Amino acid sequence: MSDLAGRFRELWDEIAPVGRDAGSGGYLRYALTPPELRLREWFRAQADLRGMPVSGDGNGNLFAWWGEPNTGGPNTGGPAGTGAVLTGSHFDSVPHGGAYDGPLGIVSALLAVDELRAAGVTPVRPVVVAAFVEEEGARFGVPCLGSRLLTGEIDADRAAGLRDAAGVSFAEALGHRPAGADPALLGRFTAFVELHIEQGRALVDADAPVAVGSAIWPHGRWRFELRGEGNHAGTTRMGDRRDPMLTFAFTVLAANKEARLRYAHATVGRVAVEPNATNAIPSTVTGWLDARAAAPDTLHDLVEAVRAKAAERARRDGTELTVTRESATPLVTFDGGLADRLAGLLGAPVLPTGAGHDAGVLAAHLPTAMLFVRNPTGVSHSPAESATDDDCAAGVVALARVLEELACH
Amino acid sequence: MSDLAGRFRELWDEIAPVGRDAGSGGYLRYALTPPELRLREWFRAQADLRGMPVSGDGNGNLFAWWGEPNTGGPNTGGPAGTGAVLTGSHFDSVPHGGAYDGPLGIVSALLAVDELRAAGVTPVRPVVVAAFVEEEGARFGVPCLGSRLLTGEIDADRAAGLRDAAGVSFAEALGHRPAGADPALLGRFTAFVELHIEQGRALVDADAPVAVGSAIWPHGRWRFELRGEGNHAGTTRMGDRRDPMLTFAFTVLAANKEARLRYAHATVGRVAVEPNATNAIPSTVTGWLDARAAAPDTLHDLVEAVRAKAAERARRDGTELTVTRESATPLVTFDGGLADRLAGLLGAPVLPTGAGHDAGVLAAHLPTAMLFVRNPTGVSHSPAESATDDDCAAGVVALARVLEELACH
Repeated sequence: MSDLAGRFRELWDEIAPVGRDAGSGGYLRYALTPPELRLREWFRAQADLRGMPVSGDGNGNLFAWWGEPNTGGPNTGGPAGTGAVLTGSHFDSVPHGGAYDGPLGIVSALLAVDELRAAGVTPVRPVVVAAFVEEEGARFGVPCLGSRLLTGEIDADRAAGLRDAAGVSFAEALGHRPAGADPALLGRFTAFVELHIEQGRALVDADAPVAVGSAIWPHGRWRFELRGEGNHAGTTRMGDRRDPMLTFAFTVLAANKEARLRYAHATVGRVAVEPNATNAIPSTVTGWLDARAAAPDTLHDLVEAVRAKAAERARRDGTELTVTRESATPLVTFDGGLADRLAGLLGAPVLPTGAGHDAGVLAAHLPTAMLFVRNPTGVSHSPAESATDDDCAAGVVALARVLEELACH
Repeated sequence: MSDLAGRFRELWDEIAPVGRDAGSGGYLRYALTPPELRLREWFRAQADLRGMPVSGDGNGNLFAWWGEPNTGGPNTGGPAGTGAVLTGSHFDSVPHGGAYDGPLGIVSALLAVDELRAAGVTPVRPVVVAAFVEEEGARFGVPCLGSRLLTGEIDADRAAGLRDAAGVSFAEALGHRPAGADPALLGRFTAFVELHIEQGRALVDADAPVAVGSAIWPHGRWRFELRGEGNHAGTTRMGDRRDPMLTFAFTVLAANKEARLRYAHATVGRVAVEPNATNAIPSTVTGWLDARAAAPDTLHDLVEAVRAKAAERARRDGTELTVTRESATPLVTFDGGLADRLAGLLGAPVLPTGAGHDAGVLAAHLPTAMLFVRNPTGVSHSPAESATDDDCAAGVVALARVLEELACH
């Protein structure tokens, strides 16, 4: 193990127990709950140790500044200045999530600052390490809530009123109404680079520890509601049935097949059945299709193909199909010039991702890039997510090189 | 409309509003709740009008006696005597059930007594009209609870402790501990004939208003638990997935196909998904298979074929399958001689059924038969269940002929 891998492990072990569920081994670090508040305190202490003043934006996002002391008020990133390079990620987790999704980007950023300092690098632009709030949306239901507030992509009043499962509002959890969009603060950043654990196994196949992100696939959710005729499971002849479970099952298999044909992703992970009784043919089965593809046209074709297959089967089953688009997120293409520059600098492969990130929100407002660190299991949003200390060290080295490139030249 | 159909309609209209849900048009007549208690009071009043003393068995079942006055104690059907002919059914419903399932058998029995009396028939054996308690099992979870208690097929202490969704025990609802098995009362019956709405459309196809039951198909419930790997729906490549929803969907379609091949019934009406999130590949999907067939071997072959198909697909999907039999009810064959005799008497077709009934419980203890009345929709356990008044009148005529045959000769 390299020195850097050892330093990574040391820092990592400080936060590893926080919010870990003994049963699942996964993390319960919901935004602004005690475990996440402890991680925020830890972040402030780490910034202090490095002489990096921490400012907030009034939305729950934290910014630790190297190269430009912060003396600002509640809704400012500090004194005037331009061209700061922003990095960082988030502390919050999905229910029983993995250790790396989010925190790896923050810990790596702190260590990258250490690396640059140890190498005697003096940035000509500030380097800022961010901890964004509620990236997963696991507590208040809106993913990337912190970055959406900062960029004005969600209204502050709407965000204030979002409530968690216990009825606590975001404003109550934050302690005040969120401040909302801060174009002045945003304007002080020249680029954002988010390092993140890979949520897939492309780097395993590529035999590389680090990749540069090219894009976030367009994606969306479609609700497939199938109505048939509730009836007695024991007495109704097979030929007399109008069973929506059959149409649902066919749709699940069709979605899988159509996605594979297009090198896209389709998942039916959620289903609701009425009355959901063992001895009753269901009256209604509703399935949610999560679909993602490299290009908007591919995504459109995929969903239309699944819809057509489902409709054809519904005719055979005597059921009725209604498809409703619940959400759609367009393609996010990270700054192509920046991605190419970083890939060349690092000699790293360039990969798209199917997952949303704060980088996807910020990409519409400033040049943005992502770095991915190899995940041997490829598993995400689960305790099985993992990374070796050596690969994490390689991520720190890559991020340090990127920050030097962006902040020193 | 015949006179009898008019009298049927008149009596039917007295109970039609009781427990009907204005929204669904279905019935909420759970055992020993106010709507069912009102129907029991109505039953006592109708018996009174006919000079038929009503006795209980201490288990919640009611018996109205024609031909032998009841003077007995709390757990007796009246004074000594043998050879009574028992008929009747139940008042309780499934949630939002139909009007006919149960009550038709009781109302038809009262009208059959009227028909016999109007024709001047004097039975040489008593005719007894029963209202069994908790036939559907919709409140306390055990179907045919009343007949199981009477016959000793369920222990009285176990029945006493069964609780409804609100935590009320059967003993509390009944007002006392159930009395349990009553072999003396059972021994006084020479036969049981239950008239029931058909739960299917065989009589529509046969163009006949009434059929005689031959058997209740063997049936059971099997839990198919499929474990895969929970993962991110957006980022996990299709080839890297171990998605149990795919195995579940394949199993649903396989069960349908295998049942059709065997003229059997297979239904997957209940499913549970973990974590059941739109953007997560499930870690576990559990489906419940309800399977029924005319013969035990056919049922066994059906379930084994579904299990084999599911296991084969699980191997392809990288998921793990565990199949658990949750319940199994053997074939009930109604007394063959009695069924043939009644079919000959009525010129009616003979049909098996896939549904459980109090007649299925009593069949192990005394000669038992069932009559089915045509249901134009074939739908059961739903407000769409129906019967014409003329067919109901035909059912009364058939039941009266059967009672005369059994009680006068």
